[in-house]
Amino acid sequence: MNEHGSADAARTPVSVIGLGAMGSALAGAFLARGHATTVWNRSAARADSLVAKGATRAATVADAVAASELVVVCVLDYAAAREQLEPVAETLAGRVLVNLCSGSPEQAREMAEWAAGHGAEYLDGAIMTTPPGVGGQDMMFLYGGSAAAFAAHRDTLAALGDPINLGTDPGLACLYDTALLGLMWSTLTGWLHGVAVAGADGVAATAYTPIALRWMTAIAGFMTTYAPQVDQGSYPGDDASLDVHVAAIQHLVHASEARGVDRSLPELLLSMIERAAADGHNQDSYARLIDVLRPAASA
Amino acid sequence: MNEHGSADAARTPVSVIGLGAMGSALAGAFLARGHATTVWNRSAARADSLVAKGATRAATVADAVAASELVVVCVLDYAAAREQLEPVAETLAGRVLVNLCSGSPEQAREMAEWAAGHGAEYLDGAIMTTPPGVGGQDMMFLYGGSAAAFAAHRDTLAALGDPINLGTDPGLACLYDTALLGLMWSTLTGWLHGVAVAGADGVAATAYTPIALRWMTAIAGFMTTYAPQVDQGSYPGDDASLDVHVAAIQHLVHASEARGVDRSLPELLLSMIERAAADGHNQDSYARLIDVLRPAASA
Repeated sequence: MNEHGSADAARTPVSVIGLGAMGSALAGAFLARGHATTVWNRSAARADSLVAKGATRAATVADAVAASELVVVCVLDYAAAREQLEPVAETLAGRVLVNLCSGSPEQAREMAEWAAGHGAEYLDGAIMTTPPGVGGQDMMFLYGGSAAAFAAHRDTLAALGDPINLGTDPGLACLYDTALLGLMWSTLTGWLHGVAVAGADGVAATAYTPIALRWMTAIAGFMTTYAPQVDQGSYPGDDASLDVHVAAIQHLVHASEARGVDRSLPELLLSMIERAAADGHNQDSYARLIDVLRPAASA
Repeated sequence: MNEHGSADAARTPVSVIGLGAMGSALAGAFLARGHATTVWNRSAARADSLVAKGATRAATVADAVAASELVVVCVLDYAAAREQLEPVAETLAGRVLVNLCSGSPEQAREMAEWAAGHGAEYLDGAIMTTPPGVGGQDMMFLYGGSAAAFAAHRDTLAALGDPINLGTDPGLACLYDTALLGLMWSTLTGWLHGVAVAGADGVAATAYTPIALRWMTAIAGFMTTYAPQVDQGSYPGDDASLDVHVAAIQHLVHASEARGVDRSLPELLLSMIERAAADGHNQDSYARLIDVLRPAASA
């Protein structure tokens, strides 16, 4: 809908199936960009506020699928998506199905095969923001699957955030999502561990964190340096070698112990660094830890 | 020294004791800004290239201390610093001692007491970059200790990087340094774990990492949101609650297992999240993990 509450005829119509907090945010972002938006939810009342903003309420999933060539699904998980779509499988031919639920790469690939078996183009996506962030132009929406579908609908998907095409493997969005969340948990837990260590000596989290945020830029620089080292299998430790890290992380273990702060995270990291430094690798960079993490066959 | 190889009379003279890779970089940065720079190292030959750039070689530590009111020490550790300075302790009165070695907050505080006992002003610093980064104006140099010494020499210390005054506790620089390195190890290991997971499905580290770097900006946003929650002891999980994290991190554990990637990091994080979510906290934000990390008495 445009500002006057009517759909822009130049914009691709879209149907959104599933109106939880995230699905509602997606439908709202399409409406805000002037797309004719059809919505469906198991509990029909969840559509009320969107209908008030100009969305069309579909009485059934079949009606929602019939209303638009582009069908966006945002339900709890892959099982829920299949449960809703299987009864209407015969109507999917020629449509583009964009599935934004969370799950494993294997589930996404299976869903893609199922969709292809019914003649639909399939994109599997991951939303790298919370519902209030939907519509922000720098928020990452990751997609894997049909290159033709991405090319045809990139501009429409840009209503939701910044659409990033990872490639034709429909498992890629779930794969990246899983890996990126792991980065988040590790980073947040490492940050909170430092907050606990500094806090034990009277430093407020709000005093420590601005310094930590500046330091994150330096850490990002290390990642940029180390990524090609991993791909090339060569780990020059010019900037800081593993023996230096081993010595330094022992300070963190001791500082944690002296303050009664939980030591399990630094102790795990120390054991990984020591394993990476073994076998004559103690002059290598931190990126050598990849050999400790990944399967032996590919190391 | 200025470009013509002579010291700028308006600039504070400085002595640098210890010319390892880092000490040499510090002396070089002072010289580049036109400070009359006196240098000393146990192996005198380490000073040759600095002398060629205009530094003055001190024959003894006593000569180095006598040459400048501002004395910067960059040796292996606190024990080495004390070993060099104790024989000249009686000459430190009225001078400003800036110690940039790594160690524990306790060691820094002890050194500050020792310096105060000999009438010196004391600053304890941490260098948040590698030797090639010294002199970069956005590189963080953290200081704790004498407020008067920081005020008097802030501009001179700016030759090395961005001087940040953490407060009057001389242990603060080591405290922050230890916490920040912990953030680095956690972040880099979490990143490499994701590289291993994605790599098992054929994604190159250099393909995954640009997406991870963009995601780091979102993670920094979470830190900004959560820091005041820690200080206020209130953890509203509006954006993502611990029960959602528990469900999501199990995907990471399973994805790791399915690919033969080491699971010890996600399993440790899962156990911490589960402990944080216990006792009715499962609707709280991730910041609630602070209670798992810090000593029970302050939780």
